[in-house]
Amino acid sequence: MLQLEGLTVVPDPRPERRARLLGLLEQHKAGAMTVTHLPNVRYLSGFTGSNGVLLVTPKGTKLFTDPRYALQTSGECDCAAKICTGPVWPELAKEVRRQALTALAMESDKLSHDQWLASAALFGKGVRLKRARGLVESLRAVKSSGEIEAIRRSVRLNSEAFQQALGEVRPGMTETQLAAEIDYRMRRLGAEGTAFETIVAAGERSALPHARPTGQQLRANQLLLVDMGASLDGYCSDMTRVVHLGPPPARARRLYEAVLEAQLASVAAVRPGAACARVDAAGRRALRKRGLDKFFRHSTGHGLGLEIHEGPRIGRKAEGVLRPGMVITIEPGVYLRGFGGIRIEDTVLVTETGVEVLTPTTKEFLVIPS
Amino acid sequence: MLQLEGLTVVPDPRPERRARLLGLLEQHKAGAMTVTHLPNVRYLSGFTGSNGVLLVTPKGTKLFTDPRYALQTSGECDCAAKICTGPVWPELAKEVRRQALTALAMESDKLSHDQWLASAALFGKGVRLKRARGLVESLRAVKSSGEIEAIRRSVRLNSEAFQQALGEVRPGMTETQLAAEIDYRMRRLGAEGTAFETIVAAGERSALPHARPTGQQLRANQLLLVDMGASLDGYCSDMTRVVHLGPPPARARRLYEAVLEAQLASVAAVRPGAACARVDAAGRRALRKRGLDKFFRHSTGHGLGLEIHEGPRIGRKAEGVLRPGMVITIEPGVYLRGFGGIRIEDTVLVTETGVEVLTPTTKEFLVIPS
Repeated sequence: MLQLEGLTVVPDPRPERRARLLGLLEQHKAGAMTVTHLPNVRYLSGFTGSNGVLLVTPKGTKLFTDPRYALQTSGECDCAAKICTGPVWPELAKEVRRQALTALAMESDKLSHDQWLASAALFGKGVRLKRARGLVESLRAVKSSGEIEAIRRSVRLNSEAFQQALGEVRPGMTETQLAAEIDYRMRRLGAEGTAFETIVAAGERSALPHARPTGQQLRANQLLLVDMGASLDGYCSDMTRVVHLGPPPARARRLYEAVLEAQLASVAAVRPGAACARVDAAGRRALRKRGLDKFFRHSTGHGLGLEIHEGPRIGRKAEGVLRPGMVITIEPGVYLRGFGGIRIEDTVLVTETGVEVLTPTTKEFLVIPS
Repeated sequence: MLQLEGLTVVPDPRPERRARLLGLLEQHKAGAMTVTHLPNVRYLSGFTGSNGVLLVTPKGTKLFTDPRYALQTSGECDCAAKICTGPVWPELAKEVRRQALTALAMESDKLSHDQWLASAALFGKGVRLKRARGLVESLRAVKSSGEIEAIRRSVRLNSEAFQQALGEVRPGMTETQLAAEIDYRMRRLGAEGTAFETIVAAGERSALPHARPTGQQLRANQLLLVDMGASLDGYCSDMTRVVHLGPPPARARRLYEAVLEAQLASVAAVRPGAACARVDAAGRRALRKRGLDKFFRHSTGHGLGLEIHEGPRIGRKAEGVLRPGMVITIEPGVYLRGFGGIRIEDTVLVTETGVEVLTPTTKEFLVIPS
């Protein structure tokens, strides 16, 4: 890393990513790979278009795309590129023959069965195809400093949009309207869009594990759950907060405190070397003490980055271990049918020594005047 | 169709859709099919969740989903449903065995290669898997009266959002800001969201075939291209309009008139029985007369419905023939590098006797005061 009068120049991480992928491929006895999943293509090459396949080999990496992206490719990518006027796969197959490759890993969990068969036919019998899943994704789980900065910006923007939208909350407005206000504010603040469909669930609907906003109106004396994330320069953020319209009853306060305690317990368990399952267990244990663990029916969190759901998974049966540079959500929740649900979610960074909560939004139980 | 004192009761189209699919399957010698592509699942069953697989057999249709969707499934679906606490495929395989099915079509263009292999292993050697692509999609190309109504509503909402956003256009605002205004207005008018990422391209950027909105400011004396579509109750709309900030120069006027002439020519060619390629040719011929056909580098249009791109394709080499009930876009364009691009796009319905333009927005060359 070069230090230039206070300005830190971060080296381009892409060549190293590709070198590490080649290392993984050697372990899988493939030596070369096609990359089709677009977030993986972007991660390795910088390409953000909607039609592009990478061929990664020891001789170099080449992007195959179409003329719509000719200009964009030269601006974005640091690797070779072939602009194909026809379909990209036959061109890629030519390059496979040119390099006399005999084994090729392909993303068998992303590629359709038809495409797999069509590629196999194009490559011919001399090329052995190897099913590979999660290879690039495993690299992506640990973020570079540039990625961490990008996520920080996305998280900040998301919290700012929440703050702005909160000022608009009024009894009588519908869940859908509030979701529209939230998304609009994200965009006005510079986001490309949302990282996922914004969840706004009022009253009893907050207990639904998968609530899409509806035409239901917000009313006084209700819980209001908002789960939202922005996409900024390709990077995601994710936050859930629950507020109350009017002064919350004692039951809601007790539930909120219990979930907050669980959330803080899981956050406190985050550190390099910690088993993901232990981070999950910490929050679950806090809820068990209050007899609420049976109402916490999902896992504690997930990694995020170029996609909203990435590795590692933070769940009861998760097998991974946290490493510095991982960015994950911590989002325990308790859902009582007929009453409502409470979930509190932050995006946090695994640091060299412990954890940094990236989400700046308060976790106080906010009361909206009604 | 029942007539009830002026109220037309349309019969539920889903059972007939499934019956027609079974007819297609018989032709393909499969007899039964798994449906995994979510718009197809929705079309056949009504299910709108994010995790659901259909098994369609002569004995009936069954949806396999998870407990998150238990409530939703009973409200939405008119077929049997199995709520699986674990993965859905093993449960589906049990049903395949129960019915002693020996051949099963699967959507090989949508299913990942890994999922194909995993399913094959689950089903065992007694079940022959048949690659099927586009079967449900072929049914979806002709819309039911309920679908046509849904698309009409989506088209109207989209035009209304355009009209509202147009009132916000000011020199100095960025492409991204205008896109945010458009999307916000769609949502306020009741859309779930956009049908695709809204395109706003000003000045020379309007000549880029795949322009994403940028931080570039709108300026006086510029072309402004907007390509937008809403999603309302699952159904898409799609419209492109080009306006001018300040009085357009003669060259822009001439180009606009040429594209409009081409658009009207293609629209006029739409009727039942017309070859899709002829509809494309009609517009291209109009441009050729002015020496502009070489600047029209994409196809004329596409079907739309539950997805923004569906059959039929309206292009130079398209092989299909129009049928009543198809809903397609007609969107010729001319793109001059360094100057700008003009595209005019309506959503139109193939009627029993000809064509109905669904898009109500004017195709006059609108001038925005600047």
